Amino acid sequence: MAKLWAKGYRLNELIEQFTVGDDYLLDQDLVRFDALASIAHVKMLERIRLLTKSESRRLRRVLRGVIVQDRKGTFKIKRSDEDVHTRVENHITAQLGDVGRKLHTGRSRNDQVIVDLRLYGKEKLLELQAEVAGLAGTLVAFARKHEFVPMAGRTHTQKAMLSSIGLWAGAFAESLLDDLKLIDGAYDLSDQCPLGSAASYGVPLPIDRQYVSDQLGFSRVQSNVLYANNSRGKMEAIALSALVQVTLDLSKLATDLIFFSVPELAYFTFPDEFCTGSSIMPQKKNPAGMEMVRAKSTTVSRCLFQILDTIKGLPSGYNRDFQETKEPFFKGLRETLQIVRVCDVVMKGLKVNRQALIDACTPELFAADHALRMAASGIPFRTAYHEVAKRLNEIEQEDPVANIRKKRHMGAPGNLGLAAVGQRVKREERRIQHESARFDRTLKKLLRP
Amino acid sequence: MAKLWAKGYRLNELIEQFTVGDDYLLDQDLVRFDALASIAHVKMLERIRLLTKSESRRLRRVLRGVIVQDRKGTFKIKRSDEDVHTRVENHITAQLGDVGRKLHTGRSRNDQVIVDLRLYGKEKLLELQAEVAGLAGTLVAFARKHEFVPMAGRTHTQKAMLSSIGLWAGAFAESLLDDLKLIDGAYDLSDQCPLGSAASYGVPLPIDRQYVSDQLGFSRVQSNVLYANNSRGKMEAIALSALVQVTLDLSKLATDLIFFSVPELAYFTFPDEFCTGSSIMPQKKNPAGMEMVRAKSTTVSRCLFQILDTIKGLPSGYNRDFQETKEPFFKGLRETLQIVRVCDVVMKGLKVNRQALIDACTPELFAADHALRMAASGIPFRTAYHEVAKRLNEIEQEDPVANIRKKRHMGAPGNLGLAAVGQRVKREERRIQHESARFDRTLKKLLRP
Amino acid sequence: MAKLWAKGYRLNELIEQFTVGDDYLLDQDLVRFDALASIAHVKMLERIRLLTKSESRRLRRVLRGVIVQDRKGTFKIKRSDEDVHTRVENHITAQLGDVGRKLHTGRSRNDQVIVDLRLYGKEKLLELQAEVAGLAGTLVAFARKHEFVPMAGRTHTQKAMLSSIGLWAGAFAESLLDDLKLIDGAYDLSDQCPLGSAASYGVPLPIDRQYVSDQLGFSRVQSNVLYANNSRGKMEAIALSALVQVTLDLSKLATDLIFFSVPELAYFTFPDEFCTGSSIMPQKKNPAGMEMVRAKSTTVSRCLFQILDTIKGLPSGYNRDFQETKEPFFKGLRETLQIVRVCDVVMKGLKVNRQALIDACTPELFAADHALRMAASGIPFRTAYHEVAKRLNEIEQEDPVANIRKKRHMGAPGNLGLAAVGQRVKREERRIQHESARFDRTLKKLLRP
Amino acid sequence: MAKLWAKGYRLNELIEQFTVGDDYLLDQDLVRFDALASIAHVKMLERIRLLTKSESRRLRRVLRGVIVQDRKGTFKIKRSDEDVHTRVENHITAQLGDVGRKLHTGRSRNDQVIVDLRLYGKEKLLELQAEVAGLAGTLVAFARKHEFVPMAGRTHTQKAMLSSIGLWAGAFAESLLDDLKLIDGAYDLSDQCPLGSAASYGVPLPIDRQYVSDQLGFSRVQSNVLYANNSRGKMEAIALSALVQVTLDLSKLATDLIFFSVPELAYFTFPDEFCTGSSIMPQKKNPAGMEMVRAKSTTVSRCLFQILDTIKGLPSGYNRDFQETKEPFFKGLRETLQIVRVCDVVMKGLKVNRQALIDACTPELFAADHALRMAASGIPFRTAYHEVAKRLNEIEQEDPVANIRKKRHMGAPGNLGLAAVGQRVKREERRIQHESARFDRTLKKLLRP
Repeated sequence: MAKLWAKGYRLNELIEQFTVGDDYLLDQDLVRFDALASIAHVKMLERIRLLTKSESRRLRRVLRGVIVQDRKGTFKIKRSDEDVHTRVENHITAQLGDVGRKLHTGRSRNDQVIVDLRLYGKEKLLELQAEVAGLAGTLVAFARKHEFVPMAGRTHTQKAMLSSIGLWAGAFAESLLDDLKLIDGAYDLSDQCPLGSAASYGVPLPIDRQYVSDQLGFSRVQSNVLYANNSRGKMEAIALSALVQVTLDLSKLATDLIFFSVPELAYFTFPDEFCTGSSIMPQKKNPAGMEMVRAKSTTVSRCLFQILDTIKGLPSGYNRDFQETKEPFFKGLRETLQIVRVCDVVMKGLKVNRQALIDACTPELFAADHALRMAASGIPFRTAYHEVAKRLNEIEQEDPVANIRKKRHMGAPGNLGLAAVGQRVKREERRIQHESARFDRTLKKLLRP
Repeated sequence: MAKLWAKGYRLNELIEQFTVGDDYLLDQDLVRFDALASIAHVKMLERIRLLTKSESRRLRRVLRGVIVQDRKGTFKIKRSDEDVHTRVENHITAQLGDVGRKLHTGRSRNDQVIVDLRLYGKEKLLELQAEVAGLAGTLVAFARKHEFVPMAGRTHTQKAMLSSIGLWAGAFAESLLDDLKLIDGAYDLSDQCPLGSAASYGVPLPIDRQYVSDQLGFSRVQSNVLYANNSRGKMEAIALSALVQVTLDLSKLATDLIFFSVPELAYFTFPDEFCTGSSIMPQKKNPAGMEMVRAKSTTVSRCLFQILDTIKGLPSGYNRDFQETKEPFFKGLRETLQIVRVCDVVMKGLKVNRQALIDACTPELFAADHALRMAASGIPFRTAYHEVAKRLNEIEQEDPVANIRKKRHMGAPGNLGLAAVGQRVKREERRIQHESARFDRTLKKLLRP
Repeated sequence: MAKLWAKGYRLNELIEQFTVGDDYLLDQDLVRFDALASIAHVKMLERIRLLTKSESRRLRRVLRGVIVQDRKGTFKIKRSDEDVHTRVENHITAQLGDVGRKLHTGRSRNDQVIVDLRLYGKEKLLELQAEVAGLAGTLVAFARKHEFVPMAGRTHTQKAMLSSIGLWAGAFAESLLDDLKLIDGAYDLSDQCPLGSAASYGVPLPIDRQYVSDQLGFSRVQSNVLYANNSRGKMEAIALSALVQVTLDLSKLATDLIFFSVPELAYFTFPDEFCTGSSIMPQKKNPAGMEMVRAKSTTVSRCLFQILDTIKGLPSGYNRDFQETKEPFFKGLRETLQIVRVCDVVMKGLKVNRQALIDACTPELFAADHALRMAASGIPFRTAYHEVAKRLNEIEQEDPVANIRKKRHMGAPGNLGLAAVGQRVKREERRIQHESARFDRTLKKLLRP
Repeated sequence: MAKLWAKGYRLNELIEQFTVGDDYLLDQDLVRFDALASIAHVKMLERIRLLTKSESRRLRRVLRGVIVQDRKGTFKIKRSDEDVHTRVENHITAQLGDVGRKLHTGRSRNDQVIVDLRLYGKEKLLELQAEVAGLAGTLVAFARKHEFVPMAGRTHTQKAMLSSIGLWAGAFAESLLDDLKLIDGAYDLSDQCPLGSAASYGVPLPIDRQYVSDQLGFSRVQSNVLYANNSRGKMEAIALSALVQVTLDLSKLATDLIFFSVPELAYFTFPDEFCTGSSIMPQKKNPAGMEMVRAKSTTVSRCLFQILDTIKGLPSGYNRDFQETKEPFFKGLRETLQIVRVCDVVMKGLKVNRQALIDACTPELFAADHALRMAASGIPFRTAYHEVAKRLNEIEQEDPVANIRKKRHMGAPGNLGLAAVGQRVKREERRIQHESARFDRTLKKLLRP
């Protein structure tokens, strides 16, 4: 279809193919948000009398139709459409003629795509927060269920001191709670409305940016119109920076689970339905899900790095390079969501082999405890340490469960405060549900005739 | 000097050289924090009666001595010392004998280095926040001074629409204000006390982790002892994720300034004292500072990537790999501080060539405005756009200053709200000063006999 | 369809979706190579009498059918097929029954996918080499056509000394010739046949790996069966390391062209059909192709980084993580090919504005020449340098064309040896054509009944 | 000391500190090469009569003195010296007055630093190649010594099929032999002399670049003077791309060794003197060396990424950004050398626990063999596979050594061709020694009066 900027020449086909790339396919995910943002824009143009009530009504009707078609999968963007914005404007104009030609008054595709990405990002970040909180809850439940099941704690992959399933799983729960703060911080920065910044330099019209922002449920306008455009890629990178922490945590979980489930350790068993097999070895049950969590954690970092390196050193104002930040943004969000869900399913199905765990609690795990108890009785710790080191083979086996119960300082295996951690998870869940409901309500309101 | 873990064999020299690397040199920056954390630890041991009042007094006296020596530059760590913790413990034991051997009771080097890094990080993040707020203030002042000086706004590096110095500089100020939120978020996550988590698995002693945390001015204990250790590298990466946004912003500033100061544009002139010359070309005045801001922005990203990639997929608990996150953490903080300071100096000294800027405001910059004004008069925007496109050479030159003043919607060149932005900067500065004062006061209190 | 390893349980749907991801879509590009490698495998099994002549004939017939269907786009892989290998084996078994069940004798999907990727990689690397040589030829032609057109040479983006179009374009031609060596080196390492290494540990059958290798046109067998599997990702990374050099060169070309075509310099003009427009600004002609070359050069690096970071620290033998290296490998190859083609088209269409280039050759460009000529006449160079520096405004304008012609040392603007560079390009083109023809011939031979 | 480009103003102190950074410290490693390149340059200037015989003799004498002082550690560069080139020229001029001022005739610091880096890089790459070949030799020796010691081969970290120490160690040897090709390819591209390209644009003097290149032992001149400068960073990145493959291989070795030496597997034992201890746990012997190999493999990749991302998108000609590629280039080379040496020491000292290895060879390792032998007897493989899968607990234990000896196809555990791999290593060693001797001889020749 005709480009919005068509001026009587045809773009070189190779250049078109190259510059559009898969962007028109990615834009398919933005149709709904593009239409919603256009509805808000139309309401504002009506408010400042650049559209009549009737024009506004007709435009919004067709825009709602776009959303319906999109939901049915029948509003398709083609490469020759260039992008979602062109596709929508051309569609409207085909339906409404001159009224459609008024839609773009006071904005540019530059601020349009940013507002689309913000709405998309906000929705996904809310979804992700819900999943992360859910996984944190699953981990707390797992930790509480097996709170006093002993485990050989490790440093340097070697056996170190006594640990517990409660400690191990609780560590991931607390880490995810910290990650939620990061995601929420990223959400807050994304919660600024760029619409009306146009091509970075504003417009000579009395547009009401605050009104548009309110209509779309943003907490505030991103004021400086050049900053709004300069922040393309920036907000995406900030979001992925938060996500990367989630995937790093879960890459650790995956590494632990792969290691803990080798036959020589057998602390955990994956249910069959979580394991893939081999085309040549009949006996294989492979922890493919956990390996992919580990690998895809690299993929998500790569998405972050790609955005950061693409925008580095770009001059102020829009540059076409920005387009290349869309794929990693979408991919990073999508993959992280999947990673979190897979870990949740796995933690819910994981079988704990209590006896194998207890059997692994060999005497050397108590060497440090022994020295520390000597220190408590007055022997200088360093002296006690060297004493124990000299007689390592004399260290006595201890009852690991009793040992766990005796470590009572804050955060120690015998005092993990899991109930409190569980409370924190609940509070987060409520916060997220509340904001999700608000977000949905606002967007639904836009759909009213 | 003797390793803390010496057991009658000598570490292979190559392995020692390789595993210690430059870590003992980096640890020099941690001496003060290591001693402060030890003082808090000693006070806690006294409180739970594992040290007598007199032992505590003597230990703290020697630890204060370490801080004094460090300030004078006479407390040096050698490679054979392995690290700062060994150096300090050996020093104390050399001074106090058996009392020194009690210092390590209830902790490990694992939690010690984390607490050192947290204190170091908090101090640097406060310093950096002050500098970033300062630069934001400088940019606001620059924007206000030249608020209505016109500038050719660009997209795709090509001339686009009319801009202004106020808009351009104000965009960076707003961006840095957003970055401050990120740094503050990172600061908050770093504000958790890991001490007492020991080797990841706690200790069988009634240590009082809350007390230590309060003494060191942390807002809270990082509870789960395994999480405390798993978060090594994580908090550093979170901090650098925030810093990267600052350096990306300033890489854009640098790119703009390099471009805007080529003789063909000459919008800005760097004072001579900011420029380096050539060994072969007598005429050269090179914007080396800005080129280094651009290059070092890559360096800071690389520091982040190094940390993320080093910790990815590590199993739970301490791994020696963590050591390799120290250098990029220090480097990232140091380089970002320098980048911000350099930009501040440059923005304060930059000369604005008003006439060159005005001369660059050629008619094509007003093409969009022309079409938009036609739209305001009722012609559908897309129709107006094509009309203007057909008669590009008929676009009339406008008075750029008048044009700026007429763009009055929120965030447009004629309504930048710079006073309000300035107020936000002031509020940030007060917040940072307040927290810095609190942090300093707490640490000073620890030095009392 | 049934998994090859089906053992009476269904894989959890989420785990399946997650672990397969888009891999089944990517595998579509491997169908032809998978079938070809299977044909070679079948011929070998016949040779060592594990298949009868008739079984071999039937299997190869169906495999050729797969290739025909693939060419027509009718051989589709579905997610439930898991991968191309499963899809093909199931297809064969559906056609041939028990004979199909023999196809997998003596191999694993692990070595199968590697051989597929090697063949795919070899084909793409040959294609890419041809394109790179073609672009080098285009640049030499451009350089020769405008060999003595002067240009303001720059360092630090600032004006430095006199340059020429010949020098500028010739620099890229020579750089690409060096890149061809890297690609050829990568091709050579990919030219090792992994088939028969099975699941990393070989098979207890007298398979003839040399025969398979010869049939598929590899220069040698990758001998150690564990190395063959450990090198998954490695060869891909080696290939992308070479490609990255191409894209970096062309990111420089793109940066130069974007800068040289701003109206203030106007050295070059892009034909209209290479430029995109704006939705709001009627006058815009944006160098979007060059911006995307710049951005996609980051994308290609990111593909390399993703592979390197995914395989880092993996244990020996196959790990599912490897799957995640396929997408960046394909993407890196595809994007680089596009980048090279776009640059070729652009360099062929670029308009040179001779007068603007000459006008930009202002006196300061001759300052160093002036000092150097003083040095040639006996004044110590450093003294001459300072003399000239003192009287910069006295430097006389020179005839730039004459200046170029006088710089006659090797590689200087007046002695670029472009004819010789052109000869090198021709030699490379012949080398590549020769190898491509050999590769095609070998694969075609496999298709004989 | 005075800048070469001093023009009567002082560089702002912060800008100086920032732009010079640690570059003056890094340049300390270039003193010898800078002096050698200057000697070659002086000989050339004498040859083309821009220096008299006596001037040449005096200059070369002082330059040799610089090399002697540098060897003694008394030729120090200070920050105010800016760089090695300034330091040397100022030193010469202080010694020789006007003759010293002639040294810089016909060159720029831009081509000087490149030639220094090329010579430095060539020396280090030769050193590294020798170490890599040495380690390959050590691995072959290890593989031959334990060729038929069985090992549980793994995929997905889980037990897969029977392997052997010979196979495992031989895989790394073959991989390193491939890496040597990459390093040699990088060496070849670095083997081009950039001197005489000056500030990217050549000089109006009849300099003899071929003569300089021959004097310095380069295989050829890097002709196009702009390409010589554009390739700053490029050659460094090419070198590190090769190194990264070495470190990735060794990160795999490290991961394997850490895993294979946990007490639950105990295949290998590190000698005590390779292990570090814990400050709190008396029993710990940690494989810190291998953990650092794993971590530093990330560091080396980071060095590569930093160079690639720094040079991406820079305009043609020198940019100050290039300076920031020096540190990662040096660091990457240094760390890789260390990594290789540490692995060599470790492989030489590693204890093999034959019994533990044999005990780990449990029946499931033979499941695939079983199915394959059924296939050899005529049962379709896929049918055999499913048969075996149904009766996994009936698989009989096999004699693992006999099993190894029976797998006789190329590259299988029973036919590794280790003698031939050993021969390849020897050939590489001879090639490297030959080139090293030639390189040393050439540079020594330059030192003759």
